[in-house]
Amino acid sequence: MTDAAELTRALIRCPSVTPDEGGALTLLQGLLGEAGFDCTRVDRNGTANLFARWGAKGAARSFGFNGHTDVVPPGNPDSWTHPPFSGHLDDDGMIWGRGATDMKSGVAAFVAAAIDFVTRTPPDGAVILTITGDEEGPARDGTRAILDWMDSEGERMSVCLVGEPSNPETFGEMIKIGRRGSVTYRVTARGVQGHVAYPHRTRNPLHALIGFLNDLTATPLDQGSAHFDPSGLQVTTVDCGNTATNVVPETATAVFNIRFNDLHDPDSLDDMLLGRAQAITEATGVTLDLDASVTGDSFLTAPGPLVDLVAGVVEAETGLRPVLSTTGGTSDARFVKDHCPVVEFGLVGRFMHEVDERVPADQIRALQRVYHRILQGYFG
Amino acid sequence: MTDAAELTRALIRCPSVTPDEGGALTLLQGLLGEAGFDCTRVDRNGTANLFARWGAKGAARSFGFNGHTDVVPPGNPDSWTHPPFSGHLDDDGMIWGRGATDMKSGVAAFVAAAIDFVTRTPPDGAVILTITGDEEGPARDGTRAILDWMDSEGERMSVCLVGEPSNPETFGEMIKIGRRGSVTYRVTARGVQGHVAYPHRTRNPLHALIGFLNDLTATPLDQGSAHFDPSGLQVTTVDCGNTATNVVPETATAVFNIRFNDLHDPDSLDDMLLGRAQAITEATGVTLDLDASVTGDSFLTAPGPLVDLVAGVVEAETGLRPVLSTTGGTSDARFVKDHCPVVEFGLVGRFMHEVDERVPADQIRALQRVYHRILQGYFG
Ligand SMILES: [Zn+2]
Ligand SMILES: [Zn+2]
Repeated sequence: MTDAAELTRALIRCPSVTPDEGGALTLLQGLLGEAGFDCTRVDRNGTANLFARWGAKGAARSFGFNGHTDVVPPGNPDSWTHPPFSGHLDDDGMIWGRGATDMKSGVAAFVAAAIDFVTRTPPDGAVILTITGDEEGPARDGTRAILDWMDSEGERMSVCLVGEPSNPETFGEMIKIGRRGSVTYRVTARGVQGHVAYPHRTRNPLHALIGFLNDLTATPLDQGSAHFDPSGLQVTTVDCGNTATNVVPETATAVFNIRFNDLHDPDSLDDMLLGRAQAITEATGVTLDLDASVTGDSFLTAPGPLVDLVAGVVEAETGLRPVLSTTGGTSDARFVKDHCPVVEFGLVGRFMHEVDERVPADQIRALQRVYHRILQGYFG
Repeated sequence: MTDAAELTRALIRCPSVTPDEGGALTLLQGLLGEAGFDCTRVDRNGTANLFARWGAKGAARSFGFNGHTDVVPPGNPDSWTHPPFSGHLDDDGMIWGRGATDMKSGVAAFVAAAIDFVTRTPPDGAVILTITGDEEGPARDGTRAILDWMDSEGERMSVCLVGEPSNPETFGEMIKIGRRGSVTYRVTARGVQGHVAYPHRTRNPLHALIGFLNDLTATPLDQGSAHFDPSGLQVTTVDCGNTATNVVPETATAVFNIRFNDLHDPDSLDDMLLGRAQAITEATGVTLDLDASVTGDSFLTAPGPLVDLVAGVVEAETGLRPVLSTTGGTSDARFVKDHCPVVEFGLVGRFMHEVDERVPADQIRALQRVYHRILQGYFG
């Protein structure tokens, strides 16, 4: 049997700070190749990625895993209790090092589970692993590169599990079944300049902009939905740069970010915001130009066979009934969701990106058992 | 008889761009000295001013005039139809040049009227002229310097007429009996920085600032009073400078100007604004620091003997019943009001500060007649 905890230690010793592969993918490719996986390096623009399939290409049922071996920089190594690329195992059974939590452990758990599963009980279908090297960076040439390559090669996952840390405090308490989307708007307000003593000869772009932004911040965009928290809007800057205190300025700008749930999409938000801007323009004569930059659509894998399978295994293994959550920031699941149904389950996300990142070895082994039982359940 | 139109042309030929005297005060001092006025140059910090009194110091009744001979720069002289310091008189009886309207003509009119009046019908009292050289500049060493000097010398005006242009379109339609005050506020909002995806861990200073400013701009400060338009508030800048679109900033600033009528004073505005800021802070946890800079209190010379006298003469001379107005920007009347009752009546204010500033010579002569009749009425 493969030990995911030992594999995690070996992966931590590969210094794979984005975009360096650091030997991590090479190590995994060796293990997976020995176990009968068909491995392909899918590198793009200097980012290394690994695609591995056990079973026939185009199988009717294929279970996919997704994860990344790249890590954020360790910061000052001297600040660490144990060196960040040591994979040190202490007397309390804790494994130390950059990537211990996020997420060499998660990758080790699904690699070990997949190897053991196909070796002992060869399934009628395929097991596909997509392991990337650009999750912590711009995220342009990692999971997106593998999915693009799979499309062109006719490779398919029927469902996919992303192995990112998903539990805030306790192993087994939370599965992520979706994430809110994110869009950033830049607004430019243009009015008519003039003297503050004669406001009827001016059109103050700041008054229009303040009214527009106050509407957006004073009333919630929604009250949340079945699986999502309410959408949120944060103004991140307002700028004008007018130094003349007796002059109404001609232009002013603002930027705001919206984290939106499944009650919205970029088009519906755009319609709503353009409508409000138009009403302000009609009332004030100040034009409001909106420029949107979408960084991620929202996604949801509604409760169904995949979510039931994962939740059932987690409860059987941990005794906890996991919450089906859509909280937190973005992950590569935002790309996978366009390929197939996707959920996220992994370790407890403490110490991520921090000095002294560490994880109990036994938690990695518990995650390995969860992934193994999910594969058994899927193909059983 | 002295011709105010010819005197205006002579004054225009003195290039008295603030703070240069340009020979204008020297010219007037010569004329007034010849006519028996006791003249004193009251210069301060490089600004030249002229105090002239006919009659006894400390007379029980003394009628004052106030005006300025300094002018704003002409801009590009080649853009002018006639050179800006030519005082050209065209075939239509129009006098051209910088200061033709604002306000060498007004000064010429009251100087000419005063000389003729005291020469023909020496009054039982004093006529005092305060002519300054820092109205278009910082206004620190002009009228304020003369009033300070008068206080220290025991010189008094019983009432004062400021000869600034007061009519928007038609000569005789408007007397200014007051002006709104002006105060400028700088607000600094301080919150708690953080990631836009986790707003509960942040306190967005922009949301608090937008709410504060929206309250101020969405609801009028008042509905106006017997003699005043409603007070006005204009936001002149909002600045934050945050370039990270996924970060809630820690601080943001704004500046706004209030033109306030006699329903407010700087203290009552401060109380109101501090109360609103405090309410926002209690609701949001964001602190709002306010920093006020008062540039002029409001003033009003309520209808009474002085206003009745001026209005009656204007109506008799022009056939128009003048509106008693408190509109427009600030003038040196804001300083004179602390010395004695003050009103403003002068020419039509078109072309002020513009290229091709010009005025009909006959309008100057009409203003001279108005001033003459006011002196007759005051001492009659
Ligand atoms: Zn990660
Ligand atoms: Zn003026």
